[in-house]
Amino acid sequence: MAKYSKISAQLSGQPMFQILERAKALQAQGKEILRFEMGESSYPAYDVAVEKTVESLRQGHTHYVSAQGTLSLRKTICEYTFKTHGFRPHPDQVLVMPANAVIDTIVRCTCDPGDSVIIPDPGFSTYHSVLKYLSLKKIPLKLDPDHQFKIDFASLDQESSTNASLMISNSPNNPTGKMLQFEESQKLFELAEEQDLFLLSDEVYSTLVYEGTHHSPCRFDECKERTLLLQSFSKGFNMAGWRIGYVIGPIPLIEKMKLLFETLYSCVPHFIQAAAESILKEDAWIAKAEREKLKLLRNTMMQHMAKVPGFQFAQPKASPYLFVNMTRLGVSANSLADYLLEEAGVTVLPGDLFGEQGKGFIRLCFARPELEIVKACDRINRAIRKGIESGIFPNQNSLGDEIELFA
Amino acid sequence: MAKYSKISAQLSGQPMFQILERAKALQAQGKEILRFEMGESSYPAYDVAVEKTVESLRQGHTHYVSAQGTLSLRKTICEYTFKTHGFRPHPDQVLVMPANAVIDTIVRCTCDPGDSVIIPDPGFSTYHSVLKYLSLKKIPLKLDPDHQFKIDFASLDQESSTNASLMISNSPNNPTGKMLQFEESQKLFELAEEQDLFLLSDEVYSTLVYEGTHHSPCRFDECKERTLLLQSFSKGFNMAGWRIGYVIGPIPLIEKMKLLFETLYSCVPHFIQAAAESILKEDAWIAKAEREKLKLLRNTMMQHMAKVPGFQFAQPKASPYLFVNMTRLGVSANSLADYLLEEAGVTVLPGDLFGEQGKGFIRLCFARPELEIVKACDRINRAIRKGIESGIFPNQNSLGDEIELFA
Repeated sequence: MAKYSKISAQLSGQPMFQILERAKALQAQGKEILRFEMGESSYPAYDVAVEKTVESLRQGHTHYVSAQGTLSLRKTICEYTFKTHGFRPHPDQVLVMPANAVIDTIVRCTCDPGDSVIIPDPGFSTYHSVLKYLSLKKIPLKLDPDHQFKIDFASLDQESSTNASLMISNSPNNPTGKMLQFEESQKLFELAEEQDLFLLSDEVYSTLVYEGTHHSPCRFDECKERTLLLQSFSKGFNMAGWRIGYVIGPIPLIEKMKLLFETLYSCVPHFIQAAAESILKEDAWIAKAEREKLKLLRNTMMQHMAKVPGFQFAQPKASPYLFVNMTRLGVSANSLADYLLEEAGVTVLPGDLFGEQGKGFIRLCFARPELEIVKACDRINRAIRKGIESGIFPNQNSLGDEIELFA
Repeated sequence: MAKYSKISAQLSGQPMFQILERAKALQAQGKEILRFEMGESSYPAYDVAVEKTVESLRQGHTHYVSAQGTLSLRKTICEYTFKTHGFRPHPDQVLVMPANAVIDTIVRCTCDPGDSVIIPDPGFSTYHSVLKYLSLKKIPLKLDPDHQFKIDFASLDQESSTNASLMISNSPNNPTGKMLQFEESQKLFELAEEQDLFLLSDEVYSTLVYEGTHHSPCRFDECKERTLLLQSFSKGFNMAGWRIGYVIGPIPLIEKMKLLFETLYSCVPHFIQAAAESILKEDAWIAKAEREKLKLLRNTMMQHMAKVPGFQFAQPKASPYLFVNMTRLGVSANSLADYLLEEAGVTVLPGDLFGEQGKGFIRLCFARPELEIVKACDRINRAIRKGIESGIFPNQNSLGDEIELFA
């Protein structure tokens, strides 16, 4: 047999895409599957996003452009960053590419095989899959489930973190919705400074904040020296299908990342860049509209999910996710996810995919039509109660009907 | 200073994109630059390609889909392959992604650091940059400039080729336009078989054949065991700005490549996939129209370039490139490219970027409006004559005005 590389044995992809495929296969068999696994809105895109793209296509933006992104989009991003973050980067600090590709690219430009990366735990599954396939070690920075997912700085292994090559922070956090306090953002920046690390601040959910304030560690050096600000149009603007995001960082590292992206992808399509530029310039109201919509949907999901015996959760102050503790059921999150797909026709993500601290949790995305949320919660509720009655949950005796919110 | 990886020191990106940026900077200063470096048509996209994308956007194809590509596009690709190649792959053999990403992905899924890859020389610059940044060795399979760029199988280092991990073939070849004879395609397949290698057959120019017949080594195993067929919408359909292509290959390798692409990019935008599907199904005539157009433009460029003293070239039977031998001028291709940009305001690609065998050549893309071709050839002609008169070309004495075509 022809040869495969070592890398090829370590690939895990994105688990939600694999659940998506499984769900679509069941749908093709005629089953009604309610899909809550993907981190994207199932609402149609905003008309204005579609029409800006149409306009741009018809204007002839159908040729290659610089791999770094068009200068006009990068300038617009700089102005937008001034509005959101209070500092104005230089356009040379900006690189236009999808957010997942940014994660892979920064890791490959800063880490050699065997190196270590500090990542939040629980944390976005792409951090895990990128580190895994590149044979890198993860140093988890624990978000403590017993303390509302506050960062447990004391848990950081001092010795191993001294040897890290990169740190990734994620606020608002996927899957918990937890946001950094100002002091935490400062402490992360200081930690990166002490260890002389680049710090990738993944802020793709920063426009989806329902309560409280978003604090970015990038404000301390304005992405000039060691912080990199990662943003996306996928979540805040409901433009996941456009595959566009951007990163702002120190010019020498951005230059390297650009060369890698150029080798792999040439550039993000010009008509997509031009549409994104119009949205940021003229229609940044979309982010507010999206936030308002999702806040209502969050409330709906919480209200209905609270009826499910054995489920516990805190109110997520940001992000489109409800992260539900189901340890009281006494089964693994994987088994529960399988059970819910089979019994309730609902897809959810097992928390294990986000790291050790995600064990015993499932993630549901509430960027779904209200009726679908109500229907899914009702189906889950009935499935869990049926499971309790038939004795498939070992801990059934301790389960009551009462609502229990996290402390 | 925070750490950079070893990879980051080996990145070279795509040289044509760097020339593109330099040209655009000069254009921004008010200089009229005629750009012949990029391998894409400067004609507007076909209206139908734009409108199919518009239709697809308005139909709401703005959400995540499988990283492998939609099943309907993959089925359409299978039917199209039956028409072009005479065999019908299984949809599971098809993976939808941009062609450059395919090159990076197959190399990473089959090679470990230090491994070797057989590539054509001259050959597409991305082969070189991918091998370089991944610390892989290249084993050049020489296309002999003295024999119309026929493959010189004898030149292949037998010992080192026994240790190769992958072979890449490219027909029609970029930059020479050379196509494999049937016997050559067979010999390449047998070589891959003997060494038990995967063989990536890069056929992105296979619809741009003006004379002769395209022969694919993929016909021997129908992409089931070791061959992979690489196609793109960029060149044949003038859809470079859409960033979509596909690869057909053995299912176990396609599965690995899909996982890597999923990790990095999630998926090609659905509305782009849907547009590509419509084009293949209903409007594959575009490929013919594009071929007819480019054949005329090739003839125009050859006619006018033949007037330039010291230039020699063969008629390219395929591809949008004229690959011009300029060794008689006695300067390097790099110097000549710089001179032509400065003196004539014309960008060309030095042949060195394509490998050892490309030294002494420059590449020009003739997918340009006729008047622009005539203007550029005229400017080049005057610049070269001026250079000869002012004595900057060492070999000036041997240069006449006569047209010299390659044997």
